[in-house]
Amino acid sequence: KETLAQKNESDPYANDPARSPLLTVRGHKPFNAEPPLELLDSEITPNDLFYVRNHLPVPKIEGKDYKLEIVHRDGRTSELTLADLENKFKPHDVTATIMCAGNRRNEMDSIKKVKGGYWDAGAISTARWTGALLSDVLEELGITEEGVEHIQFEGLDKDSTTQTIYGASIPADIAMDKKCEVLLAYKMNDEPIPADHGYPIRAVVPGVVGARNVKWVGKIVASDKESDSHWQQNDYKGFNSSIDWHNVDFSAAPAIQELPVISAICSARIEGDEVVAQGYAYSGGGRGIIRVDVTADNGNSWEVAELSPADPNQKRNRVYGWTLWSATLKLPECGKTVEDGCLVVRSRAVDSQYNLQPENCDKIWNLRGVLSNSWHEKKLVLDN
Amino acid sequence: KETLAQKNESDPYANDPARSPLLTVRGHKPFNAEPPLELLDSEITPNDLFYVRNHLPVPKIEGKDYKLEIVHRDGRTSELTLADLENKFKPHDVTATIMCAGNRRNEMDSIKKVKGGYWDAGAISTARWTGALLSDVLEELGITEEGVEHIQFEGLDKDSTTQTIYGASIPADIAMDKKCEVLLAYKMNDEPIPADHGYPIRAVVPGVVGARNVKWVGKIVASDKESDSHWQQNDYKGFNSSIDWHNVDFSAAPAIQELPVISAICSARIEGDEVVAQGYAYSGGGRGIIRVDVTADNGNSWEVAELSPADPNQKRNRVYGWTLWSATLKLPECGKTVEDGCLVVRSRAVDSQYNLQPENCDKIWNLRGVLSNSWHEKKLVLDN
Ligand SMILES: [Mo]
Ligand SMILES: [Mo]
Repeated sequence: KETLAQKNESDPYANDPARSPLLTVRGHKPFNAEPPLELLDSEITPNDLFYVRNHLPVPKIEGKDYKLEIVHRDGRTSELTLADLENKFKPHDVTATIMCAGNRRNEMDSIKKVKGGYWDAGAISTARWTGALLSDVLEELGITEEGVEHIQFEGLDKDSTTQTIYGASIPADIAMDKKCEVLLAYKMNDEPIPADHGYPIRAVVPGVVGARNVKWVGKIVASDKESDSHWQQNDYKGFNSSIDWHNVDFSAAPAIQELPVISAICSARIEGDEVVAQGYAYSGGGRGIIRVDVTADNGNSWEVAELSPADPNQKRNRVYGWTLWSATLKLPECGKTVEDGCLVVRSRAVDSQYNLQPENCDKIWNLRGVLSNSWHEKKLVLDN
Repeated sequence: KETLAQKNESDPYANDPARSPLLTVRGHKPFNAEPPLELLDSEITPNDLFYVRNHLPVPKIEGKDYKLEIVHRDGRTSELTLADLENKFKPHDVTATIMCAGNRRNEMDSIKKVKGGYWDAGAISTARWTGALLSDVLEELGITEEGVEHIQFEGLDKDSTTQTIYGASIPADIAMDKKCEVLLAYKMNDEPIPADHGYPIRAVVPGVVGARNVKWVGKIVASDKESDSHWQQNDYKGFNSSIDWHNVDFSAAPAIQELPVISAICSARIEGDEVVAQGYAYSGGGRGIIRVDVTADNGNSWEVAELSPADPNQKRNRVYGWTLWSATLKLPECGKTVEDGCLVVRSRAVDSQYNLQPENCDKIWNLRGVLSNSWHEKKLVLDN
């Protein structure tokens, strides 16, 4: 019979770091947690509140021992140390939001069961990342778009039983375009990247889904193919609501890369005859948020929110950070707009391409509960 | 009393060219016309069927007399002839769809009156354009992004009474990025650009709304400001449905540039116990179409369409041509899905950023009736 100590020793998650008690834990092993929505009220998320989405145990890595292996198209390999990445390339800063494809999965799940961990609207956070530009590193190593369609990342996190390692890839056009600002990041909000977020090196791919922002990157492969990992091939893809596990063909859909436009209400309350609401809005692919509409009468009338971008210096189509918003609405006539005894506040964001969030969650339902970006709603119980 | 001949001489539109009788005319002066939807069934639209959206009379220009004036940031000017554009720069081909911001305006108008000319879903077409890359021309002239935020185009079309000329601008990041493939085009489907489409030079701005694809370009200005034209400042912008003419502030919204995802059903018919439908799908900003969903039961079940991109060689995020689609659906149980005695077929497209079309037109209604990209529907009258 195992003692507790023996159990801990054989537990691959025993080395996972301590976490803030403020996080709402969605899964322990692997660790998944999101901040309470009310705390997502600053342009930059503090490191200890940044949502955590791990797929495997957190690997224990000493910075001085860290080596990044880079596999060229012809099979040759190069190696870089942490010091190389910190010193041989011009440090680059980018304010970037990272969001899990499953953010707001709870809403899809409540319509019809989906396969995937529970997330409310907090599986998204924003940091100022510092690192070497991946484009600079590839250029220095002589890796060009010639024959290279995808840049694959492999993590140093590993399943102790199956030996599976986390992997994902991004299209070479993103990786090699300096304007896309893909980083091999070694700092998160001016601190070394915390263990939960990829110490010592995380691939930060602005505008692209969290799953491709690979933590604890140990290997980069320049390839003509996408990563063959489970998470690239058979997960994190979108389908319509007529596709379920009996008829899904994962090869029929592209891996999610740039995320579509989304928003959420992080807090809303009634103050006298007004409703005060605030939240975030974000769109992938560098698209900035140009408008957030808020309604308390299911879209019959809309109030335009005040916007506060995470970084006001972001250039057009390189807006990689989210936009916080706030709005004050006149309380509508209750008789007309009460739904199940509640006043329902809804938000929808519009991005610089004038794409906007879909209206109803049931029409975008998908078997993995990803891309849950319909109008967000918050119910306020009415007193009388 | 004027004679007919006198009338014609004083008519600024007297020089407008002859047009194909196949076009459905939406306005004579200025000329606006769209092809019948059934004829939008080829990847490349024949020149004489390409929709026409003119704002002013067609200017009469001889190629040998044509001069393009380019105004540098410091006020200096350069001049290029048609022969310069044809011979001094490497010819570049791009398959690009151009769409009017008002495409499908008729649907918004039927909900609540909007201000703008009538368009069904045919104010969109696709051609293979050949010309000089604007980025090459600017580079050759020494115009860099230094101090330049916008590239303004002025047309040679002019209102004879007010002397107003057509103008529009695009962000410099699009104009100067070779991957955005902005052309000073002199050929349309291998022929000199027809008079209605901008002879001798049209700015072709792939992925960007028709209004910025300025025809008969006579002047280009490198500027820190957008064009101050009516069409840039007080038109072709999106608002929510709570904004109408009594409260609109045009300065509060950005000029439409990259278009959001759209689709339309160009034909649909019942064949036995099946519905056969085909149409187009398109998204701006180089986003390709990854899926078109078609439903005959208002989104309770979806069929995935077969896709045929205008140009199979388009690179990821540089998909500037539309995608044609076709689908065959099992005829649903009529009792469940008939709406007003009709079977209603609906399409919605999803682009590579997983943005999809909004569900309902009334929720995206706007005072100018632009960006009308909700699910498209076609009603089929049932026999019994
Ligand atoms: Mo994720
Ligand atoms: Mo237009």
